[in-house]
Amino acid sequence: MPQIPTLTDISEAAERIRPFAHRTPVLTSAWFNEQTGVELFFKCENFQKVGAFKFRGACNAIGKLTKEEGERGIVTHSSGNHAQAVALAAKLNGYKATIVMPENAPKVKVEAVKGYGAEIVFCESTIASREETAQAIIQKTGATFIHPYNHPDVIAGQGTAAKELLEDVPGLDVMIAPVGGGGLMSGTLIAAKSMKPGILVFGAEPELADDAFRSLKSGNIEPVLRTDTIADGLRTSLGELTFHIIQTHIDDLVTVSEASIIRDMRNVWERMKIIIEPSCAVPVAAVMDKKVQVEGMKVGIILTGGNVDLDSFTWKS
Amino acid sequence: MPQIPTLTDISEAAERIRPFAHRTPVLTSAWFNEQTGVELFFKCENFQKVGAFKFRGACNAIGKLTKEEGERGIVTHSSGNHAQAVALAAKLNGYKATIVMPENAPKVKVEAVKGYGAEIVFCESTIASREETAQAIIQKTGATFIHPYNHPDVIAGQGTAAKELLEDVPGLDVMIAPVGGGGLMSGTLIAAKSMKPGILVFGAEPELADDAFRSLKSGNIEPVLRTDTIADGLRTSLGELTFHIIQTHIDDLVTVSEASIIRDMRNVWERMKIIIEPSCAVPVAAVMDKKVQVEGMKVGIILTGGNVDLDSFTWKS
Repeated sequence: MPQIPTLTDISEAAERIRPFAHRTPVLTSAWFNEQTGVELFFKCENFQKVGAFKFRGACNAIGKLTKEEGERGIVTHSSGNHAQAVALAAKLNGYKATIVMPENAPKVKVEAVKGYGAEIVFCESTIASREETAQAIIQKTGATFIHPYNHPDVIAGQGTAAKELLEDVPGLDVMIAPVGGGGLMSGTLIAAKSMKPGILVFGAEPELADDAFRSLKSGNIEPVLRTDTIADGLRTSLGELTFHIIQTHIDDLVTVSEASIIRDMRNVWERMKIIIEPSCAVPVAAVMDKKVQVEGMKVGIILTGGNVDLDSFTWKS
Repeated sequence: MPQIPTLTDISEAAERIRPFAHRTPVLTSAWFNEQTGVELFFKCENFQKVGAFKFRGACNAIGKLTKEEGERGIVTHSSGNHAQAVALAAKLNGYKATIVMPENAPKVKVEAVKGYGAEIVFCESTIASREETAQAIIQKTGATFIHPYNHPDVIAGQGTAAKELLEDVPGLDVMIAPVGGGGLMSGTLIAAKSMKPGILVFGAEPELADDAFRSLKSGNIEPVLRTDTIADGLRTSLGELTFHIIQTHIDDLVTVSEASIIRDMRNVWERMKIIIEPSCAVPVAAVMDKKVQVEGMKVGIILTGGNVDLDSFTWKS
């Protein structure tokens, strides 16, 4: 298993990404506080570069490469926020990125990655094809593969969001993050528990992608069984490293329904006037549905990103 | 004609509303800067209380009343952001607000006003009926009428947004606001021109509601001829006071097409991850379409509000 990152790694990551990443604002909402009886603090990673926290991890991992490694290029396979994050982080560091994407990836995501200057190599729409295609590139060029979550430097980078949140709101009693592959959750656990040992840290998952919940019960990494949750960022199973960190440190992990995710995505849009992607609404729904017992407490929620396909809405013209 | 407010009135308004209103953030966008060749600063009144700058004016006008006046109640007629602004500002000052609304007003707006604790009196859907109904209440109760824009204290309140923007970004060369009834435009002109005499201040209107543009040409207040612009906050003619202030101080007033308004409303949602109402996109479109010559300059844009009816979108469930 790779090295487990520490608060020192997260602090170094914060320094490393500072010239490139935004220190995102923390918003509050009188309406959500009234509805929940909780004092909520929203860390707005939807305002992060590429519109998602993923930029932090990619930027840290790529920034840590030696010049020689970087100049052999960066590879990843993803059709989501990690692809854009790697593309931009590579560009800002002056390196070349190659992103392996399934040939049926949405055009808007392909264009976004191209817009950040990365090369795209298409593959068949299977995990096996993605991995083989990436491996072939690595063997040919010596490029470095940046895993989207099961990677200590990526986890340390993601932990910088929780670090900033706790610096801005030192009085937090609780922090909640959503769980997909577990990179954000792992970084959040390490940062929060190291900086403030008494803090509670919860994870939240869609009921339809409750693999981490089942993994904690069984003690083994369980697969995601279906991929139809609206929270498209959370359709991923844990990795060996993220599972270990989560298993060791998490206080509780709860699940929420699709209806609650949609309700609170809309509530955030309507009440807070910010665009969040469905994954962000998962921890919000956990508080609204009282899946976690946090009444009267100060609770930090990490809003993971704002990349929604607005084409799925009708725009009057 | 009522007294024209000065920078002193705006500074006093700022003190008066400070306990109640948000000092809203100023956001920037690398994407918009690249697209336009302009350094843009967005003053986010979509994050203001009740989701719009209108709260500033209502809060100032109501806060300036004597206790005796306030206790006789507040009246206005509106189905838009001003209604919610008056309702909340009255509540926060401990006064009773009565809002006259047309009987066909959208239920969501009626509920919003009720939610802020105001009483609603329904009337027929004509201007005459609105004014008669409001007058009847005033004669019966001695309540004070708060006009949505043609009122010096409302104008002074709206001017606090421009004041804050110039305090936060003193290097601004230009400020642009949309023009509806002219309250925000008037307050912006007085604040900006008094604080920084060399600054250019432009107004922007939809082509379909170009009454202020025509009024400046003719020298008389011209009516809005049609009410079908998507920018629902700007379907209003100027008042005597706002026309005078705008005529005296404005550097230029430009118009933009519906297609451009929709394009840039969407661009702001997609690129900045914030929800703005269509009226906000009018000055953005003026810059994007080069209707104002501001290349290479620092330009402040006041984003007026974020109250969009999300029911007009499809929400997967």
